[in-house]
Amino acid sequence: MTEFAPPATRYFALPSPFPMHRGGVLQQARVAYETWGQLNADASNAILILTGLSPSAHAASSADDPQPGWWEPIIGPGKAIDTDRWFVVCVNHLGSCKGSTGAASIDPETGAAYRLTFPDLSVEDMGEAAYALMQGLGVSQLACLVGCSMGAMAALALLVQHPDFSRSHINACGAARALPFSIAVRSLQREAIRLDPHWQEGQYDDANYPDTGMRLARKLGVITYRSSLEWNGRFGRVRMDEVDTDTPFSAEFVVESYLDGHADRFAHFFDPNCYLYLGRAMDWFDIGEHAIDPHPQVHCEANVVAALSRTRVGKALVLGAITDILFPIPQQEEIAAGLAASGADVRFHAVPSEQGHDAFLVDHERFGALIGAFLKEIV
Amino acid sequence: MTEFAPPATRYFALPSPFPMHRGGVLQQARVAYETWGQLNADASNAILILTGLSPSAHAASSADDPQPGWWEPIIGPGKAIDTDRWFVVCVNHLGSCKGSTGAASIDPETGAAYRLTFPDLSVEDMGEAAYALMQGLGVSQLACLVGCSMGAMAALALLVQHPDFSRSHINACGAARALPFSIAVRSLQREAIRLDPHWQEGQYDDANYPDTGMRLARKLGVITYRSSLEWNGRFGRVRMDEVDTDTPFSAEFVVESYLDGHADRFAHFFDPNCYLYLGRAMDWFDIGEHAIDPHPQVHCEANVVAALSRTRVGKALVLGAITDILFPIPQQEEIAAGLAASGADVRFHAVPSEQGHDAFLVDHERFGALIGAFLKEIV
Repeated sequence: MTEFAPPATRYFALPSPFPMHRGGVLQQARVAYETWGQLNADASNAILILTGLSPSAHAASSADDPQPGWWEPIIGPGKAIDTDRWFVVCVNHLGSCKGSTGAASIDPETGAAYRLTFPDLSVEDMGEAAYALMQGLGVSQLACLVGCSMGAMAALALLVQHPDFSRSHINACGAARALPFSIAVRSLQREAIRLDPHWQEGQYDDANYPDTGMRLARKLGVITYRSSLEWNGRFGRVRMDEVDTDTPFSAEFVVESYLDGHADRFAHFFDPNCYLYLGRAMDWFDIGEHAIDPHPQVHCEANVVAALSRTRVGKALVLGAITDILFPIPQQEEIAAGLAASGADVRFHAVPSEQGHDAFLVDHERFGALIGAFLKEIV
Repeated sequence: MTEFAPPATRYFALPSPFPMHRGGVLQQARVAYETWGQLNADASNAILILTGLSPSAHAASSADDPQPGWWEPIIGPGKAIDTDRWFVVCVNHLGSCKGSTGAASIDPETGAAYRLTFPDLSVEDMGEAAYALMQGLGVSQLACLVGCSMGAMAALALLVQHPDFSRSHINACGAARALPFSIAVRSLQREAIRLDPHWQEGQYDDANYPDTGMRLARKLGVITYRSSLEWNGRFGRVRMDEVDTDTPFSAEFVVESYLDGHADRFAHFFDPNCYLYLGRAMDWFDIGEHAIDPHPQVHCEANVVAALSRTRVGKALVLGAITDILFPIPQQEEIAAGLAASGADVRFHAVPSEQGHDAFLVDHERFGALIGAFLKEIV
C-alpha cells in the first residue's frame, strides 16, 4: 500500500526479525519517515515526532515535497520547532499504512498482504520501531521527544523502556492509558468496519471495499476529535445550500456535509485493517503495566505514576485541551504527575482551545507558542 | 406495532384529521398514555410528563402493570412526583412506536404500515398531540408540565404555542434548539441505519431487519448519553471474563459488553423508521423559529429567548447535568434565560451528576430531591 506514502518519504529497514511486544515477530519490516534540518556533528540536536493515529510522516513541507504537512505551522525555519536549529524526524508508526509495515503490507514469507495475519500490534511496538530508526540515523539521544495523541502514548512507552533516550519531552493531548469512553468509541469504529459486508474478515479489495464502515468510523472519530463549543460557532444550525431530496433522511445541515467531507478524504486513503490494528493497540495501552511490582488492581492511577517515575527526561511539557472529550484533561494531569514523580521539571497546561482533541493539530497559535517557548530552553 | 406497548397502556384518539407542523395530516391517529393518581374535582392537579426519545408511557408501575417504569424512583405515593397528590399522565410521543401512531403504524387509507410515507414529524407535533390528550382527559390547565430530553424540547414548543396550558414547568436535560454536535451524532445514527442493506428504504420486516444499523446507532447513543467520568469509575480497564477469540477484533473490555447489552435490549424493541423520524425531528427543532419577528440569523440565542418569553408559566425548574455532552449546560442556561424573560420565577441547577445526559434517568437522588422540593411549592 505504498501509494499512501507521500513523495518525500524515506524508509528505514528495522532489525529483522523485529520482536513485537505481545509475542509476534516481523521479518524485513520497515518504517517510513521524513526529516527536516541538519543533524549536527555530535548528533545532539535531534527531535523525533510521533504522530496521532492517521497522519503520515509528512509533518511539514520540504524541497522534496512542497505540499503542506500536517503540522506545517509548527515545523520549519524560525517556527516553534525550528528546523534551523533542530534536526527533526517524523516517523509513520509501525502498523500504519503510510509507508511503514502494517497489515496492508506484503508478508515476505507468503508474498501476499498480511491482512489479519499481521501479529498483534501494541503501542509499545510503535515506540520501539521509532527508537530503532533513530539509532539507525545515528542518534543515541534526542534533544526532545514529541508525541501527539496516539504518538503521545507511544512516546511514554518509549521513555519508560529507554529512559535515557531523550533529554526532554513534549506530550500533547496524550493519555497514559486507554479509558472506557475512548475504548467504547474505538470499539464502535471497529464494529462499523467489521460489520460492513465488504470487510470480509479483512479480505477486501478496491472493487469490494468496506467503504460504508470506514465512512461511519471516520465520522465517529471526527465527532469525538472536536468539540460542541467549536461547532456551535462554526456551523450553528446553518443549512446546506443543496439537499438531496430524492434520498430519504439525507443530510440537511452544514455540519453533516462537513462530516461527509472528512469521510470522503479518509475512507479510501487509510487501510481498514491497519485502522483496526492501530485502534486496538490504543485500547490495550496502559503504561501502568510497566510499573515495577504493579498494583494488581487494573484500574489504578498509582501504576501509571509508578511506571512514569521510571522515565528520565530532565524537562517535560504536558499539554491538553480543556474541550477534549476523547483524552480529557485528567489524563494529561496524570501524565504530568507521573513525569514529575521521575524528578523531571514538568510544565502542565490545560490549554483553553475550543477545538477538542484536535487542538494540537489546529490551534497553532496556542500550541505553537507553548512548544516554541519550551524548546527555546532546551540545551 | 402495538407489541411494543406495555400492558397498562391506554389510548386516546387524536382529532382527525390531525394537522402536522410541517404541513402533513394524520387520519385516525392516536397516542398511548398511562396515568397514576386521581384527577381532582376541578381538574387542577394534573402533571404531564413528556419522555426522552425511546421510553414508552410506562413511567412507573401500577396495579395494571407492576413492572418498574422508566422513572420508577421519581413517581409514586410519597415520591418526588407524589401520586397521592397529583394526577400524573405520561404520554408516548406521537411518531414513536410504543402504542402511539408513527411510521410503524397502519395507515388507514392504505391498510399498510406508513413506513416512509408517514408525514414529516416535528417536535411541535409531539407537543400538540400531548396537548390534545390532556384536553380529552378534561384537563385544560396543568399544575406542572415535565419534559425530559426530547420531551423537554416538546414541552417548550407546547408552552410557546399554548402559554396558559401549565402553571409550572420542569425542564430536565433539555434543549431549546438542536446544536451541531447532537445533530452530528443523530445524523450518524441515521446513517448507520440507512446504510444497513436490510433497511431497504424502510421496507424491512422481521426476517430481514436492519439489526446492524440499529445496534450501531444505539451504541453511539449510549456513548453520548453517559460520561467518561462515570465510566472511568464504573468500568475502568476491566476485561470481560470470556472473550470470543474466534472472531477477530471482538470485544475484550467490560465497557464493550455493556454497549452490547444496550444494543441487545434496543435493536428489536424500537422501530427503525420511527427512530429515523424522531431523530430528525430533534435536528429540526429550534424554538427560536417561534419568536415573533425572529432575527434572520439562523444561529441566534436572541430568537430562543424571544420565543420563550412568550411562555406564561409562573414557576419553572430547569435542570442540566454538568457532565452532559449531548445537551450541555449552556443549553439549559439558555432555556432558563428564556423562561425568565417571560417573567417566570426560574430556578436553574447545573446538577453535579456523573452520568451525563442520562442523569435525569439515573441520578434519582439529586434529580428527585430537586423535583420534589419544587413541586411541594406548586399550588
